[in-house]
Amino acid sequence: MNVGFIGMGQMGAGMTASLLRAGHKVMVYNRSPEKTRPLVALGATAATDIGDACDGEVVFTMLADDRAIESVTLGEGGILKELGRGEIHISCSTISVALSERLARAHAEANLGFIAAPVFGRPEAAAAGKLFVIAGGAASQLQRVTPLFDAIGQRTFVVSEQPQLANLVKLSGNFLIASVIEILGEAMALADKGGIDRHQYLDLLTATLFGAPVFKTYGALIADRKFEPPGFATPLGLKDIRLALSAADTLSVPMPVASLLRDRFLTLAAHGGSRLDWSAIGYLPAVDAGAPYL
Amino acid sequence: MNVGFIGMGQMGAGMTASLLRAGHKVMVYNRSPEKTRPLVALGATAATDIGDACDGEVVFTMLADDRAIESVTLGEGGILKELGRGEIHISCSTISVALSERLARAHAEANLGFIAAPVFGRPEAAAAGKLFVIAGGAASQLQRVTPLFDAIGQRTFVVSEQPQLANLVKLSGNFLIASVIEILGEAMALADKGGIDRHQYLDLLTATLFGAPVFKTYGALIADRKFEPPGFATPLGLKDIRLALSAADTLSVPMPVASLLRDRFLTLAAHGGSRLDWSAIGYLPAVDAGAPYL
Amino acid sequence: MNVGFIGMGQMGAGMTASLLRAGHKVMVYNRSPEKTRPLVALGATAATDIGDACDGEVVFTMLADDRAIESVTLGEGGILKELGRGEIHISCSTISVALSERLARAHAEANLGFIAAPVFGRPEAAAAGKLFVIAGGAASQLQRVTPLFDAIGQRTFVVSEQPQLANLVKLSGNFLIASVIEILGEAMALADKGGIDRHQYLDLLTATLFGAPVFKTYGALIADRKFEPPGFATPLGLKDIRLALSAADTLSVPMPVASLLRDRFLTLAAHGGSRLDWSAIGYLPAVDAGAPYL
Amino acid sequence: MNVGFIGMGQMGAGMTASLLRAGHKVMVYNRSPEKTRPLVALGATAATDIGDACDGEVVFTMLADDRAIESVTLGEGGILKELGRGEIHISCSTISVALSERLARAHAEANLGFIAAPVFGRPEAAAAGKLFVIAGGAASQLQRVTPLFDAIGQRTFVVSEQPQLANLVKLSGNFLIASVIEILGEAMALADKGGIDRHQYLDLLTATLFGAPVFKTYGALIADRKFEPPGFATPLGLKDIRLALSAADTLSVPMPVASLLRDRFLTLAAHGGSRLDWSAIGYLPAVDAGAPYL
Repeated sequence: MNVGFIGMGQMGAGMTASLLRAGHKVMVYNRSPEKTRPLVALGATAATDIGDACDGEVVFTMLADDRAIESVTLGEGGILKELGRGEIHISCSTISVALSERLARAHAEANLGFIAAPVFGRPEAAAAGKLFVIAGGAASQLQRVTPLFDAIGQRTFVVSEQPQLANLVKLSGNFLIASVIEILGEAMALADKGGIDRHQYLDLLTATLFGAPVFKTYGALIADRKFEPPGFATPLGLKDIRLALSAADTLSVPMPVASLLRDRFLTLAAHGGSRLDWSAIGYLPAVDAGAPYL
Repeated sequence: MNVGFIGMGQMGAGMTASLLRAGHKVMVYNRSPEKTRPLVALGATAATDIGDACDGEVVFTMLADDRAIESVTLGEGGILKELGRGEIHISCSTISVALSERLARAHAEANLGFIAAPVFGRPEAAAAGKLFVIAGGAASQLQRVTPLFDAIGQRTFVVSEQPQLANLVKLSGNFLIASVIEILGEAMALADKGGIDRHQYLDLLTATLFGAPVFKTYGALIADRKFEPPGFATPLGLKDIRLALSAADTLSVPMPVASLLRDRFLTLAAHGGSRLDWSAIGYLPAVDAGAPYL
Repeated sequence: MNVGFIGMGQMGAGMTASLLRAGHKVMVYNRSPEKTRPLVALGATAATDIGDACDGEVVFTMLADDRAIESVTLGEGGILKELGRGEIHISCSTISVALSERLARAHAEANLGFIAAPVFGRPEAAAAGKLFVIAGGAASQLQRVTPLFDAIGQRTFVVSEQPQLANLVKLSGNFLIASVIEILGEAMALADKGGIDRHQYLDLLTATLFGAPVFKTYGALIADRKFEPPGFATPLGLKDIRLALSAADTLSVPMPVASLLRDRFLTLAAHGGSRLDWSAIGYLPAVDAGAPYL
Repeated sequence: MNVGFIGMGQMGAGMTASLLRAGHKVMVYNRSPEKTRPLVALGATAATDIGDACDGEVVFTMLADDRAIESVTLGEGGILKELGRGEIHISCSTISVALSERLARAHAEANLGFIAAPVFGRPEAAAAGKLFVIAGGAASQLQRVTPLFDAIGQRTFVVSEQPQLANLVKLSGNFLIASVIEILGEAMALADKGGIDRHQYLDLLTATLFGAPVFKTYGALIADRKFEPPGFATPLGLKDIRLALSAADTLSVPMPVASLLRDRFLTLAAHGGSRLDWSAIGYLPAVDAGAPYL
């Protein structure tokens, strides 16, 4: 298919590479154009503006936050104006449920398709086409873009006809990951202060009941107390927890662990931890138990 | 080997069966003697009192709580008096770190061996010899009982020469399981109220980042909202979280999620939830979000 | 002085009455005009639009939330356009720190004065001219409006030259009130379930260490379990805690009790408690301890 | 009356002085006898052992913790053995509800009177006879000792015929004080980081809604960040919160703020804060917000 892709960060670049590898034609756009070059080298075409990127049947966006999506979609010369009738905007960013709902409405009113398709997976999974795609949108639209999801992901989960519910699932998933970091951090602070080797302790956990990737990956970071360079930086973690709490507030769902996580991220922010990986919140229970500050 | 086994609850009975199957001779004791009969049918010998059960090289205990262990070990006609010099007491119960430490000292002073060997696994795993054994004690003692651990478990983790650290690991493990129930409960309350099917949501989680048994087992119970009959009842869960908090208090380790779990279990206790499986705490976030009380 | 007053809710009406009583001339405006009549009967003049209300030297606003203030101030025919050069807008509403800062900047750029002056006190205090005024703004502007503050309040506290810091103080004050409700609720749930009469318990507290009005007023509501009709409804309480948390987030200040309060208000919202006084959160600890739902 | 008084710490010494001033005869006992000398100088008689102190109609105890009371009351040569039939033991210490209940039963079985009478007030209030006495016990016994309570306190509150409920009230009161420290600490961390002077902020609070002594006393300590020398040291604060949580556990009353306070005290303990006044927990919100560790 002919598609556009806006946002050449680590994730967007990897997804674009996967699309190219699957034989799709991709017109790439990024605010700072030098980031498009490696993709052009792989066969993509550089778009000069957002309008250019909207020339295909589908345009993807993978951007940092609500503000970026709002500006690229609803601003001057944005997607809503530039996309052709019946064409589809696939929004892969981790954005607020409220904005996703607003975008869905705006696209429908303009006779444009809109799919929310946030993903689970780190940049390497994006580059390998091994993401998990969490998709929400009208069945007919989803069917049309199946080959694209097949190119970027190992599996697609359709959660609802309402696009914003895909964002809700994504946010709840990031909440769960951060929660696992917290509870591992507490358990490890206890074991460590009791006199048990952290790595041995983690091996025991992951060999028994806690074998999921999320325990292995984040447990190792906490046991090593190695939080730089960041794979996913603390300000992004804080942003996602804020969005989860905001969605929970709208739905009147108290989430005490999410509130605790927000406080952990704020503590890191207050102590200059913005450069760290978000797993650094898993060190804070040790700090409360007497370990030195980062 | 010739061993005694005190405590024929579901776990103790299963472990005894595994010992018998591996060719060990087991003298079984239980306060209410009728519980020993099925094991006698499998080849065990019924002991008439604790002293009887202490006639072998090793005596296991698998009892409900600190009080039971204290009475059986330190009371009149208890293990400490009855066990022969150089013989070993293997304590498999989930008891407090403080009591385990006290028992270790008392045994050492009496020239008796003492190993703490709490286990991970439900009754079926005990019966199948598939437990995970978390062992603490002197290396020489641990070596002597290796054939016994091989009989009851699929794998043994030696965590320390200090027996009580095995109890610390066990308690921290139960804390982690209860924490997973809590965070799944919060995430599911959010997804559910947002309009996503709970079972579909759980499938998505366990197929992606959260594939560990603990997510599958407890996630299903929460999604089904089926908390009876209990596999592990809420009063036992409350007991274990109390013990974890008590160990954390002794070590000056704040554990905010453990405190939250304690409050969840107290809420269930206050509302007559003692008959429920401990996964019922995973329903409380839904209650806070407007679902009806149990 | 000649002043305008926009917003004839219970608070605004009381403040206007106090201004009239002190001899000031007041031009009153309210979206639904019938609410201005009682004040006209007291000597006020009814303004036909916002522009009318901006004809004096000073215009007060006392409105429900950020959205209302934004529209009245920055919208078409709003204060920013209508107020004369050098004249002063006194914003008494409980609004976000962020909006107050934005308004301060906007007024300065338009060569208008801007004072944030949220108040402590219930409607009766407003009517009696007995409010506490928390003021932020330039010293020269504050000096000009001293007679107005003297008319509405028993005392004025100038907290900063930066208007938004007055809003921060106001929000932190409402956080403290809600926190007192929470801690009284917890203590009373404990005493009550232990077998102590709630009213006797409260008398003891307020006669000893906890004699402040905030303990007496809210303690009585919790002891009576009487939350209707609302003096200050739960949705307003939730709004203010949200604003406090938002300011805390901007400043990277974790406030665990504020997070707990947010969850309490969400729980009430989820269970249909929007009609209740905000002191109803002080009943939730009793509910957790087994008391029936509202 | 002829009374004995066991425990010449700061509180016990002050209370004894007040009893002497009111004309009562006091036989004083303390484990380290030199502490009785200042009281002997005021007219007291030094007892050589606990039995001596039990020669009057009434014996007071004011000791550090459960262990001390247990030993002095139930141990060899303790009060239970030494006190004459029909005489009364007044226990003023802050002890657990469970122990108080156990003592009440033991005294009743031995035909001895037992009153729990913990007090509110610092050492200066004890010396001045200005304590608040929280009393629980049989009406007939309470009546007999009225002159003694009049001597030590400015007012006596009888809360129940069950002695242990007086301890419950005392513990809940200490919970409330610690909670006020926490919430003031959070509010002040926010105001301070926002740019408001802490002392000016506190003046505003105490001049408006928060005029109670507890806000003034502890607010000043937090604003000054002066936590040495301790008036009431953090280990005592931790002890009392533990006892409150333990009583709440027995009654199945979740108290999330009490759990938070426990974590605050544990954090201080982990960072060497045992030498500090318990108001130091009010500094921890500032630490979370970026202030340097103690």
